[in-house]
Amino acid sequence: MYALGTHLLIELKNCNPEILKDLESVKNILVDAAKKANATIISVNFHEFNPFGISGVVVIAESHLTIHTWPEYGFAAVDVFTCGETIKPEIAAQYIIEAFECKVPSIVEMKRGIISHRNEKLPHKVCHEELQVVY
Amino acid sequence: MYALGTHLLIELKNCNPEILKDLESVKNILVDAAKKANATIISVNFHEFNPFGISGVVVIAESHLTIHTWPEYGFAAVDVFTCGETIKPEIAAQYIIEAFECKVPSIVEMKRGIISHRNEKLPHKVCHEELQVVY
Repeated sequence: MYALGTHLLIELKNCNPEILKDLESVKNILVDAAKKANATIISVNFHEFNPFGISGVVVIAESHLTIHTWPEYGFAAVDVFTCGETIKPEIAAQYIIEAFECKVPSIVEMKRGIISHRNEKLPHKVCHEELQVVY
Repeated sequence: MYALGTHLLIELKNCNPEILKDLESVKNILVDAAKKANATIISVNFHEFNPFGISGVVVIAESHLTIHTWPEYGFAAVDVFTCGETIKPEIAAQYIIEAFECKVPSIVEMKRGIISHRNEKLPHKVCHEELQVVY
Protein backbone atom coordinates (compact mmCIF):
# COMPACT_ATOMS: atom_id res chain seq x y z
CA MET A 1 0.00 0.00 0.00
CA TYR A 2 1.05 3.58 -0.44
CA ALA A 3 2.89 4.92 2.57
CA LEU A 4 4.87 7.99 3.48
CA GLY A 5 7.96 6.02 4.39
CA THR A 6 9.81 2.78 3.82
CA HIS A 7 11.68 1.34 6.78
CA LEU A 8 14.25 -1.43 6.39
CA LEU A 9 15.07 -3.20 9.67
CA ILE A 10 18.36 -4.91 8.98
CA GLU A 11 19.87 -7.53 11.26
CA LEU A 12 23.51 -8.25 10.56
CA LYS A 13 24.77 -11.47 12.12
CA ASN A 14 28.26 -12.87 11.71
CA CYS A 15 29.92 -9.64 10.68
CA ASN A 16 33.61 -8.88 10.87
CA PRO A 17 33.97 -7.78 14.52
CA GLU A 18 37.05 -5.71 13.79
CA ILE A 19 34.98 -3.49 11.51
CA LEU A 20 32.09 -3.34 13.98
CA LYS A 21 34.29 -1.94 16.72
CA ASP A 22 36.03 0.73 14.67
CA LEU A 23 34.32 4.11 14.92
CA GLU A 24 35.66 5.55 11.68
CA SER A 25 34.86 2.44 9.69
CA VAL A 26 31.29 2.25 10.97
CA LYS A 27 30.73 5.94 10.35
CA ASN A 28 32.17 5.83 6.85
CA ILE A 29 30.08 2.80 5.91
CA LEU A 30 26.83 4.45 6.98
CA VAL A 31 27.68 7.77 5.33
CA ASP A 32 28.73 6.05 2.11
CA ALA A 33 25.55 3.98 2.18
CA ALA A 34 23.48 7.14 2.44
CA LYS A 35 25.33 8.68 -0.49
CA LYS A 36 24.98 5.56 -2.63
CA ALA A 37 21.24 5.54 -1.90
CA ASN A 38 21.04 9.08 -3.28
CA ALA A 39 20.23 10.60 0.11
CA THR A 40 20.86 14.19 1.13
CA ILE A 41 22.88 14.07 4.35
CA ILE A 42 21.83 16.55 7.03
CA SER A 43 23.88 15.46 10.06
CA VAL A 44 26.18 12.66 11.16
CA ASN A 45 26.62 11.57 14.79
CA PHE A 46 28.55 8.52 15.92
CA HIS A 47 29.63 7.46 19.40
CA GLU A 48 31.89 4.76 20.76
CA PHE A 49 31.04 2.95 23.96
CA ASN A 50 33.16 1.27 26.60
CA PRO A 51 34.30 -1.50 26.42
CA PHE A 52 33.27 -1.44 22.75
CA GLY A 53 30.34 -0.94 20.44
CA ILE A 54 29.32 1.93 18.20
CA SER A 55 26.04 3.80 17.95
CA GLY A 56 25.47 6.20 15.13
CA VAL A 57 22.90 8.06 13.13
CA VAL A 58 22.90 9.74 9.77
CA VAL A 59 19.97 12.12 9.50
CA ILE A 60 19.04 12.59 5.86
CA ALA A 61 16.52 14.88 4.21
CA GLU A 62 14.61 11.69 3.42
CA SER A 63 14.62 10.45 7.09
CA HIS A 64 17.51 8.50 8.68
CA LEU A 65 19.98 5.66 8.92
CA THR A 66 20.98 4.29 12.32
CA ILE A 67 23.33 1.59 13.53
CA HIS A 68 24.21 -0.11 16.80
CA THR A 69 27.05 -2.61 16.86
CA TRP A 70 27.92 -5.43 19.25
CA PRO A 71 31.41 -6.53 18.19
CA GLU A 72 31.41 -9.12 20.97
CA TYR A 73 28.59 -10.91 19.16
CA GLY A 74 29.60 -10.01 15.61
CA PHE A 75 26.23 -8.30 15.38
CA ALA A 76 24.82 -4.98 14.23
CA ALA A 77 21.27 -3.64 14.04
CA VAL A 78 20.77 -1.17 11.21
CA ASP A 79 17.71 0.87 10.28
CA VAL A 80 17.25 2.60 6.95
CA PHE A 81 14.15 4.79 7.03
CA THR A 82 13.43 6.69 3.82
CA CYS A 83 10.72 8.83 2.28
CA GLY A 84 10.14 9.88 -1.28
CA GLU A 85 10.79 8.21 -4.58
CA THR A 86 14.27 9.40 -5.48
CA ILE A 87 16.07 7.48 -2.76
CA LYS A 88 17.05 3.83 -3.04
CA PRO A 89 17.16 2.25 0.44
CA GLU A 90 17.85 -1.19 -1.01
CA ILE A 91 21.14 0.13 -2.40
CA ALA A 92 22.12 1.30 1.09
CA ALA A 93 21.19 -2.07 2.59
CA GLN A 94 23.20 -4.03 0.06
CA TYR A 95 26.23 -1.84 0.55
CA ILE A 96 26.07 -2.04 4.35
CA ILE A 97 25.75 -5.84 4.35
CA GLU A 98 28.78 -6.23 2.12
CA ALA A 99 30.86 -3.58 3.88
CA PHE A 100 30.52 -5.31 7.26
CA GLU A 101 31.36 -8.64 5.61
CA CYS A 102 28.09 -9.93 7.00
CA LYS A 103 27.54 -13.65 6.44
CA VAL A 104 24.00 -13.84 7.84
CA PRO A 105 21.96 -10.75 6.99
CA SER A 106 18.22 -10.40 7.25
CA ILE A 107 15.97 -7.55 6.19
CA VAL A 108 12.42 -6.77 7.22
CA GLU A 109 10.68 -4.04 5.25
CA MET A 110 7.98 -2.04 7.00
CA LYS A 111 5.77 0.60 5.48
CA ARG A 112 5.51 3.66 7.71
CA GLY A 113 2.67 6.13 7.52
CA ILE A 114 -0.08 4.39 5.61
CA ILE A 115 -2.27 7.46 5.92
CA SER A 116 -5.06 6.51 3.56
CA HIS A 117 -6.86 3.20 3.92
CA ARG A 118 -8.13 3.80 0.38
CA ASN A 119 -4.55 3.34 -0.85
CA GLU A 120 -4.39 6.86 -2.22
CA LYS A 121 -0.97 8.06 -3.21
CA LEU A 122 -0.16 11.04 -1.02
CA PRO A 123 2.66 13.42 -1.84
CA HIS A 124 5.64 13.25 0.52
CA LYS A 125 5.47 16.96 1.23
CA VAL A 126 2.48 19.10 0.42
CA CYS A 127 1.79 22.68 1.31
CA HIS A 128 -1.65 23.77 2.40
CA GLU A 129 -2.51 27.26 3.43
CA GLU A 130 -3.91 25.79 6.59
CA LEU A 131 -2.69 22.61 8.23
CA GLN A 132 -5.31 19.92 8.40
CA VAL A 133 -5.47 16.58 10.09
CA VAL A 134 -6.33 13.76 7.70
CA TYR A 135 -8.96 11.47 9.14
CA MET B 1 12.83 -14.60 23.11
CA TYR B 2 15.87 -12.96 24.57
CA ALA B 3 17.24 -10.23 22.36
CA LEU B 4 19.83 -7.50 22.59
CA GLY B 5 17.34 -4.76 21.83
CA THR B 6 13.69 -3.82 21.94
CA HIS B 7 12.40 -1.64 19.13
CA LEU B 8 9.05 0.13 19.32
CA LEU B 9 7.77 1.32 15.93
CA ILE B 10 5.18 3.92 16.80
CA GLU B 11 2.74 5.34 14.27
CA LEU B 12 1.00 8.48 15.46
CA LYS B 13 -2.09 9.38 13.44
CA ASN B 14 -4.37 12.30 14.16
CA CYS B 15 -1.92 14.30 16.21
CA ASN B 16 -2.11 18.01 16.89
CA PRO B 17 -0.47 19.45 13.74
CA GLU B 18 0.58 22.63 15.50
CA ILE B 19 2.79 20.58 17.81
CA LEU B 20 4.12 18.46 14.95
CA LYS B 21 5.39 21.49 13.08
CA ASP B 22 7.12 23.20 16.00
CA LEU B 23 10.80 22.34 16.24
CA GLU B 24 11.23 23.15 19.92
CA SER B 25 8.11 21.26 20.92
CA VAL B 26 9.06 18.15 19.00
CA LYS B 27 12.60 18.23 20.35
CA ASN B 28 11.47 18.74 23.93
CA ILE B 29 8.96 15.91 23.72
CA LEU B 30 11.54 13.43 22.50
CA VAL B 31 14.17 14.53 25.01
CA ASP B 32 11.68 14.41 27.87
CA ALA B 33 10.53 10.98 26.71
CA ALA B 34 14.11 9.73 26.84
CA LYS B 35 14.55 11.11 30.34
CA LYS B 36 11.28 9.63 31.57
CA ALA B 37 12.34 6.26 30.18
CA ASN B 38 15.49 6.46 32.29
CA ALA B 39 17.78 6.81 29.28
CA THR B 40 21.21 8.39 29.26
CA ILE B 41 21.20 11.05 26.54
CA ILE B 42 24.32 11.20 24.37
CA SER B 43 23.33 13.63 21.62
CA VAL B 44 20.29 15.50 20.32
CA ASN B 45 19.82 16.55 16.70
CA PHE B 46 16.64 18.01 15.24
CA HIS B 47 16.01 19.64 11.88
CA GLU B 48 13.13 21.54 10.36
CA PHE B 49 12.21 21.13 6.73
CA ASN B 50 10.58 23.40 4.21
CA PRO B 51 7.62 23.88 3.94
CA PHE B 52 7.26 22.05 7.26
CA GLY B 53 8.05 18.81 9.02
CA ILE B 54 10.61 17.92 11.65
CA SER B 55 13.18 15.13 11.72
CA GLY B 56 15.07 14.42 14.88
CA VAL B 57 17.11 11.89 16.75
CA VAL B 58 18.09 11.45 20.36
CA VAL B 59 21.04 9.10 20.63
CA ILE B 60 21.05 7.46 24.05
CA ALA B 61 23.54 5.14 25.68
CA GLU B 62 20.85 2.48 25.33
CA SER B 63 20.37 3.09 21.54
CA HIS B 64 18.07 5.83 20.10
CA LEU B 65 14.79 7.63 19.65
CA THR B 66 13.87 9.11 16.27
CA ILE B 67 10.93 11.05 14.91
CA HIS B 68 9.71 12.31 11.56
CA THR B 69 6.63 14.50 11.44
CA TRP B 70 4.18 15.32 8.66
CA PRO B 71 2.05 18.15 10.06
CA GLU B 72 0.11 18.28 6.79
CA TYR B 73 -1.21 14.79 7.57
CA GLY B 74 -1.28 15.10 11.36
CA PHE B 75 1.17 12.19 11.36
CA ALA B 76 4.46 11.28 12.96
CA ALA B 77 6.59 8.14 12.81
CA VAL B 78 8.53 7.50 16.00
CA ASP B 79 11.07 4.80 16.80
CA VAL B 80 12.22 3.94 20.30
CA PHE B 81 15.10 1.47 20.16
CA THR B 82 16.48 0.43 23.54
CA CYS B 83 18.91 -2.06 25.02
CA GLY B 84 19.39 -3.24 28.55
CA GLU B 85 17.02 -3.74 31.42
CA THR B 86 17.10 -0.41 33.22
CA ILE B 87 15.33 1.54 30.50
CA LYS B 88 11.57 1.65 30.09
CA PRO B 89 10.70 2.24 26.41
CA GLU B 90 6.98 1.85 27.10
CA ILE B 91 7.14 4.92 29.35
CA ALA B 92 8.65 6.90 26.49
CA ALA B 93 5.97 5.68 24.09
CA GLN B 94 3.12 6.59 26.41
CA TYR B 95 4.53 10.03 27.02
CA ILE B 96 5.08 10.74 23.32
CA ILE B 97 1.56 9.64 22.36
CA GLU B 98 0.02 11.91 24.96
CA ALA B 99 2.32 14.86 24.29
CA PHE B 100 1.40 14.97 20.60
CA GLU B 101 -2.29 14.69 21.54
CA CYS B 102 -2.42 11.64 19.30
CA LYS B 103 -5.91 10.22 18.86
CA VAL B 104 -4.94 7.15 16.82
CA PRO B 105 -1.64 5.65 17.97
CA SER B 106 -0.31 2.23 17.11
CA ILE B 107 2.76 0.44 18.38
CA VAL B 108 4.60 -2.53 16.92
CA GLU B 109 7.27 -4.07 19.13
CA MET B 110 10.17 -5.80 17.43
CA LYS B 111 12.96 -7.71 19.09
CA ARG B 112 16.34 -6.80 17.64
CA GLY B 113 19.37 -9.03 17.88
CA ILE B 114 18.06 -12.45 18.78
CA ILE B 115 21.58 -13.81 18.81
CA SER B 116 20.96 -17.21 20.32
CA HIS B 117 18.34 -19.52 18.85
CA ARG B 118 18.57 -21.44 22.14
CA ASN B 119 17.00 -18.43 23.86
CA GLU B 120 20.04 -17.87 26.04
CA LYS B 121 20.12 -14.61 27.90
CA LEU B 122 23.16 -12.71 26.68
CA PRO B 123 24.54 -9.73 28.54
CA HIS B 124 24.07 -6.39 26.81
CA LYS B 125 27.76 -5.59 26.98
CA VAL B 126 30.40 -8.17 27.69
CA CYS B 127 34.14 -7.87 27.57
CA HIS B 128 36.25 -10.65 26.15
CA GLU B 129 39.99 -10.48 25.83
CA GLU B 130 39.54 -11.38 22.21
CA LEU B 131 36.52 -10.52 20.12
CA GLN B 132 34.66 -13.53 18.85
CA VAL B 133 31.84 -13.98 16.42
CA VAL B 134 28.93 -15.94 17.87
CA TYR B 135 27.70 -18.58 15.44
